[in-house]
Amino acid sequence: MVFKVGLLGLGTVGTGTAKILLDAARRHPLLETLEIHKVGVRSLDKPRAVDLPEACLTTDLEAIVTDPDIDIVVEVIGGLEPARSLILEAIEDGKHVVTANKAVISRYGNEIAEAAKKAGVYVLYEAAVGGGIPVIQPLQQALGVNRIETVTGIINGTTNYILTRMESEGGDFAPILDDAQKLGYAEADPTADVDGLDAADKIAILASIAFGGKIRREDVFTEGIRNVSASDVNYAKTLGFVIKLLAIAKRNDDSDTTIQLRVHPTLVPLNHPLASVNDVNNAVLVEGDPIGRVMLYGPGAGEGPTASAIVSDVMAIAATLHMESPAEEKLPNPLLSNAYSDYKTISPMEDLESRFYLRLMVKDKPGVIGHLGDIFGQHGLSLESLVQIGLQDNLAELVIVTHEVKEGDFQKALEILKASSADVDSIASVLRVLG
Amino acid sequence: MVFKVGLLGLGTVGTGTAKILLDAARRHPLLETLEIHKVGVRSLDKPRAVDLPEACLTTDLEAIVTDPDIDIVVEVIGGLEPARSLILEAIEDGKHVVTANKAVISRYGNEIAEAAKKAGVYVLYEAAVGGGIPVIQPLQQALGVNRIETVTGIINGTTNYILTRMESEGGDFAPILDDAQKLGYAEADPTADVDGLDAADKIAILASIAFGGKIRREDVFTEGIRNVSASDVNYAKTLGFVIKLLAIAKRNDDSDTTIQLRVHPTLVPLNHPLASVNDVNNAVLVEGDPIGRVMLYGPGAGEGPTASAIVSDVMAIAATLHMESPAEEKLPNPLLSNAYSDYKTISPMEDLESRFYLRLMVKDKPGVIGHLGDIFGQHGLSLESLVQIGLQDNLAELVIVTHEVKEGDFQKALEILKASSADVDSIASVLRVLG
Ligand SMILES: NC(=O)c1ccc[n+]([C@@H]2O[C@H](COP(=O)([O-])OP(=O)(O)OC[C@H]3O[C@@H](n4cnc5c(N)ncnc54)[C@H](OP(=O)(O)O)[C@@H]3O)[C@@H](O)[C@H]2O)c1
Ligand SMILES: NC(=O)c1ccc[n+]([C@@H]2O[C@H](COP(=O)([O-])OP(=O)(O)OC[C@H]3O[C@@H](n4cnc5c(N)ncnc54)[C@H](OP(=O)(O)O)[C@@H]3O)[C@@H](O)[C@H]2O)c1
Repeated sequence: MVFKVGLLGLGTVGTGTAKILLDAARRHPLLETLEIHKVGVRSLDKPRAVDLPEACLTTDLEAIVTDPDIDIVVEVIGGLEPARSLILEAIEDGKHVVTANKAVISRYGNEIAEAAKKAGVYVLYEAAVGGGIPVIQPLQQALGVNRIETVTGIINGTTNYILTRMESEGGDFAPILDDAQKLGYAEADPTADVDGLDAADKIAILASIAFGGKIRREDVFTEGIRNVSASDVNYAKTLGFVIKLLAIAKRNDDSDTTIQLRVHPTLVPLNHPLASVNDVNNAVLVEGDPIGRVMLYGPGAGEGPTASAIVSDVMAIAATLHMESPAEEKLPNPLLSNAYSDYKTISPMEDLESRFYLRLMVKDKPGVIGHLGDIFGQHGLSLESLVQIGLQDNLAELVIVTHEVKEGDFQKALEILKASSADVDSIASVLRVLG
Repeated sequence: MVFKVGLLGLGTVGTGTAKILLDAARRHPLLETLEIHKVGVRSLDKPRAVDLPEACLTTDLEAIVTDPDIDIVVEVIGGLEPARSLILEAIEDGKHVVTANKAVISRYGNEIAEAAKKAGVYVLYEAAVGGGIPVIQPLQQALGVNRIETVTGIINGTTNYILTRMESEGGDFAPILDDAQKLGYAEADPTADVDGLDAADKIAILASIAFGGKIRREDVFTEGIRNVSASDVNYAKTLGFVIKLLAIAKRNDDSDTTIQLRVHPTLVPLNHPLASVNDVNNAVLVEGDPIGRVMLYGPGAGEGPTASAIVSDVMAIAATLHMESPAEEKLPNPLLSNAYSDYKTISPMEDLESRFYLRLMVKDKPGVIGHLGDIFGQHGLSLESLVQIGLQDNLAELVIVTHEVKEGDFQKALEILKASSADVDSIASVLRVLG
């Protein structure tokens, strides 16, 4: 039995996907049963890095998603539209779909999963999170027998590259972003990466699978890395931490339906497995009962890795189709389905407990520390460490790490500090601390 | 549809397995369709850490593997016999099998896979390698679309624990092994772990799946960690390495059927992802085309993690059974099958290229270094670094790291060094360096 693939898009990921499918030797033998039937692009006369029969290429993407010969549609054009509509049309036409489109899946994943369920087809998106790293499949299958407690990811390569360089060079955000853009590690418009939006898309997808429920994309609290300064990176190092943009999904201990869901720069203890994930690499740490901690690490983007994930999804579908007897009623593979019925409630940030890193400039005069201590005490905030870093212009720079405290209480204490102009000159930075 | 599980063994892993199956809430919904039917043990009156109906327990393991009500047999008694025979009987009786038994699978995996193919049943063994870490399933599925080049693992927790302590404490092997035994991190008879035999079982299993061929267990070159000394750990650190017991399977560039397969203590560069895998943790690094490097990291043993892997295999089988229509001819799930037809040829160690670490005591007199240089030169052996460490009793201690050289040539040079009694007092240690 041969399955025909319709490829929407022949850019970075599409090209990588075609390369694997056109060169099956010494890969999983199932790949021999897959065949590229049509490829949809925007422009027919661009030079292409893969050899495809000319008749394969078309600009008519609608024709691909309704082509009766095609079994599996791979969507790698990106963006919200026409990607979303094409995926839905393919499903309605009874085709299975594989996509790398985190923007679409994090926003329209439920709509798509329900349509897929109705049509009796599969929609898989391993490539949408962590590039080539197997993340979604293990979460849903091998790790799925665990009661998942947290999923913590470094899932944006651009920001991890920038933070790694800030750490190793002691440099500031802006010039390193600039350089990253020149070197092709950051896009001309870096917003989606640098402001944490891409990581938020991805953690919304992971949370949905890890906790088996629908997620509203807009519920993800998101803070990017623009305000992380060279001094914070440096002080963090002195205190035994490295700053990473973490995406965190966590089940609340006391509830089956409410979870925490957030993306923000975070101080990670140096001995934590995520602390040594550097450069453009990604990693996802899964904690669950009874497995403990498992980490999946590797290249989070790029032609080859992302294509590997795409083709592994195509293969998973092909494997299932091989088992089916076309004649009679199909029973879906329960490990490849993910239409959830209920929405998860996301806890408000004020209710979360975490440790905080706080850098502030205070007046250099007697009694200031005592007064700060009073403010902290009144808000149930106890200090794990307090370092006085230096004096300049009659101001002392203080770096504080708190014990775990409710974010709401911390923010109230912060408001009062900001208002205490007799003692406090300014709040230079506030970051959350893992664990 | 409910599937009935027969559990052979209720020790560490069996107990963990029963705990998951008896408490399915907030785990993958498929677990609700699994039921423990019988549990086989050696002694009926041991206290057990799980609540099972008394009628469940039996000492008649044969009765379990032939019980017509049972769909899936989980073998967690360990050892070669009766484990192997019970697995084969279960298969012959048409039951699917899940096992954690690396000793049996690495030796009789082919026989078992062929019997399973004939009987149309699945035999899965995710728990046999890397405890709870999903390794076998990703290798066979998500990563299987890649052309796998190498699989490099830290896959024995006991030796990694010992080496980690040697590194952090600067201590010697023997007293730390002693302590590890007292603390329960090493067994009373530590041979299987310390001499690399357990890691050899596991890399034989991984190689078979990664490269899609049969492996003869006895082909694995195996060297344990008994001879790793505190000074070597220390010198390695100075040179920017950490010593790990690595299990390596590597496809030869120029061949489809020959691979390298070995377990030995290895100097790993500090910036390598495997270098920071510490304590009892395991990790498997997979390198392939086009994915690049992916690492799977986590707890390599223990009740909870190993049980997680066992149950994930049971679930994979259940998922496949859910799709089958019992009435008609079954088509096997190609992602869960692994009966290979051909044996892999293992390259002799002499043919392998690697870097070497060499520590030797030489006479402290003029011309010695020059003479050593001549011997190395004659065998095509060039030095990456040479450190003279100290003088004692008219002897100088030299630590050398070579560039890549054929193991055969290196060993010849070593023989000549050993015979050069005018210059060389003794060879203190020889270790391989990761490439
Ligand atoms: N690049 C990565 O490393 C990576 C990693 C993970 C996930 N992803 C995801 O993978 C998807 C594809 O990314 P990419 O980097 O491969 O994008 P890309 O290089 O920009 O390629 C996009 C492809 O889609 C085609 N296309 C775009 N809009 C089209 C339209 N309206 N009609 C017809 N064809 C259209 C383009 O045609 P032309 O060639 O004719 O211009 C091009 O072939 C995105 O969802 C992205 O988020 C990418
Ligand atoms: N422990 C780990 O962390 C780990 C990790 C990975 C893989 N594994 C593998 O998992 C398997 C089980 O290990 P384990 O640590 O769970 O072993 P274990 O604690 O020694 O338990 C063995 C169980 O099997 C029963 N048993 C042994 N021989 C028997 C016989 N001839 N007839 C009937 N029952 C018999 C014992 O019965 P009684 O209870 O009545 O004595 C016991 O319940 C082994 O293959 C091991 O290599 C273990």
